Amino acid sequence: MRNKQVILRDTVSGFPKESDMLVTTGSTELKLPEGSSSGAVLVKNLYLSCDPYMRGRMTKRHPGDSYVNSFNPGSPLTGYGVAKVLESGDPKFKQGDFVWGITGWEEYSVITATEALFKIHNTDVPLSYYTGILGMPGITAYAGFYEVCSPKKGETVYVSAASGAVGQLVGQFAKLLGCYVVGSAGSKEKVDLLKNKFGFDEAFNYKEEPNLVAALKRYFPEGIDIYFENVGGKMLDAVLLNMRIHGRIAVCGMISQYNLEQPEGVHNLTSVISKQLRMEGFVAPSYYHLYGKFLEMVVPAINEGKITYVEDVVEGLESAPAALVGLFAGRNVGKQVVVVSRE
Amino acid sequence: MRNKQVILRDTVSGFPKESDMLVTTGSTELKLPEGSSSGAVLVKNLYLSCDPYMRGRMTKRHPGDSYVNSFNPGSPLTGYGVAKVLESGDPKFKQGDFVWGITGWEEYSVITATEALFKIHNTDVPLSYYTGILGMPGITAYAGFYEVCSPKKGETVYVSAASGAVGQLVGQFAKLLGCYVVGSAGSKEKVDLLKNKFGFDEAFNYKEEPNLVAALKRYFPEGIDIYFENVGGKMLDAVLLNMRIHGRIAVCGMISQYNLEQPEGVHNLTSVISKQLRMEGFVAPSYYHLYGKFLEMVVPAINEGKITYVEDVVEGLESAPAALVGLFAGRNVGKQVVVVSRE
Repeated sequence: MRNKQVILRDTVSGFPKESDMLVTTGSTELKLPEGSSSGAVLVKNLYLSCDPYMRGRMTKRHPGDSYVNSFNPGSPLTGYGVAKVLESGDPKFKQGDFVWGITGWEEYSVITATEALFKIHNTDVPLSYYTGILGMPGITAYAGFYEVCSPKKGETVYVSAASGAVGQLVGQFAKLLGCYVVGSAGSKEKVDLLKNKFGFDEAFNYKEEPNLVAALKRYFPEGIDIYFENVGGKMLDAVLLNMRIHGRIAVCGMISQYNLEQPEGVHNLTSVISKQLRMEGFVAPSYYHLYGKFLEMVVPAINEGKITYVEDVVEGLESAPAALVGLFAGRNVGKQVVVVSRE
Repeated sequence: MRNKQVILRDTVSGFPKESDMLVTTGSTELKLPEGSSSGAVLVKNLYLSCDPYMRGRMTKRHPGDSYVNSFNPGSPLTGYGVAKVLESGDPKFKQGDFVWGITGWEEYSVITATEALFKIHNTDVPLSYYTGILGMPGITAYAGFYEVCSPKKGETVYVSAASGAVGQLVGQFAKLLGCYVVGSAGSKEKVDLLKNKFGFDEAFNYKEEPNLVAALKRYFPEGIDIYFENVGGKMLDAVLLNMRIHGRIAVCGMISQYNLEQPEGVHNLTSVISKQLRMEGFVAPSYYHLYGKFLEMVVPAINEGKITYVEDVVEGLESAPAALVGLFAGRNVGKQVVVVSRE
């Protein structure tokens, strides 16, 4: 059986390019390999997720350098996706089940690490949502905001990369709690989304602000209680000068830094002392135990229209390299999804 | 009555020099000013504390820039000290009481902000200790280690500026809890103190390490669980690469940065995400509610010889400017104290 795949040619330094990946057609036997009947599942991939953290996996790293390993050059990329089970050697899954979790960038995958797969029970929402609002980015936003930020009603919240998969949810969670929320993004279209669709109190295009410190002062004259950090670098430096006493910074990502050979220096860390700030990094898998609780909150909120969600969908594995690379140029508007197959 | 004083001539940029201060003799009436009988106290100063945070108060700042105001050029410096009450308009204090808290760099002070004064009850320890182990630096070490670091027995702990007033205590608290503790300092004499007097497991002279990342790797092959941050800059960058998953960084000070016009950039903050680190800044006054509990632990520990304490004592207000400036060159060995008068 033919199996179209997106292969990483070699490890990457600097900005990734489409040509760092190759779309080829290999072949896969449509059954579980011999001996793997005790655990693996064979799936048909439906939707793939483009996530900023994947940039790190393109870099040549040493084991232990990070919580995720590098991709293997010459092999398909892997990442979060939604898939349909064709054959299961794991009693937790049966043929016909929909699952989300780590799969391959290809039409069909044999997944041996089934502990990283979640069975999908709610199918009254678009299945692609399990790459975003109901998947890893959703639990990232949920845990990052409610668990890491220790938010209180009435506090001031700033979200960078606010129209992305995680940012758009954080802003809405903060509004639901009764916070004042400002987001930044990199285009007029995204800023309009933040204000008119996601209900942020204010939003601005960081590319049009010559002085980020002054921009933040304008939106937060009394300072920032909570910063949900998605970008790093100069933005973090400007935020540090605008934080309030006892502020919290949930460090989710630093997308502005991932393609630099040498990350930018952050100069204003003495504010961490003088303002008694807490900066805390986190990753979604540490909060997967909250997934059930999270779904109980967010699925009704989606169905009642209390939470809105915007995807940027491209069709076909051929489009996947450009979609992934586009994340780092900010080309996506909303959560970047690749459709491999709709059923 | 004559009153010798240490005056700040003008705000300072760069490294402070002795000549930024002037020792003069003014005069003070030895009684409380008219109308202040409802709260002020007149004290005779005995011991003054030289603390790194005082550098920030020498800089010209705007209100709200920090949790402490700048010094007033032309007036005496203020800071922590131990004093004897000569006359009291505050019912909490009476003539003859010993107190510690914020006072002036002078022989006699009228203190109106008596809410920042603590009455000294235990006088079976040297009174100068209330500028250090039993005062602000002591509660800094106690709260920073036990409250901010969330330490557990068996964890690995790294302390920079480890022979200073705070560092020497943090290391000993960590040893008492059963941690593996390494400290760094800037001279062989200090390194010897750490290993032979304070009981650190290991210690090194950071000035002799061409590669701080490699030095830390040598002492922490499995990584650092807790970093007690006193210095900032390049050291923090090296530490970030050596932290373990879920490590904690208590940010107490960044003395290497206080005299720079532009603070150094810290480049390795993406480790905060990948290692899920918590970095938390704190200041002692936020933990003064723990002072009683702290004394109950530390006074017996001192008397039983379980905790050792080293001071670097200079005599006379004339020596105060050099002592304060010396902090930033690392000239002090142990807690820097200025004796104004011994009784």
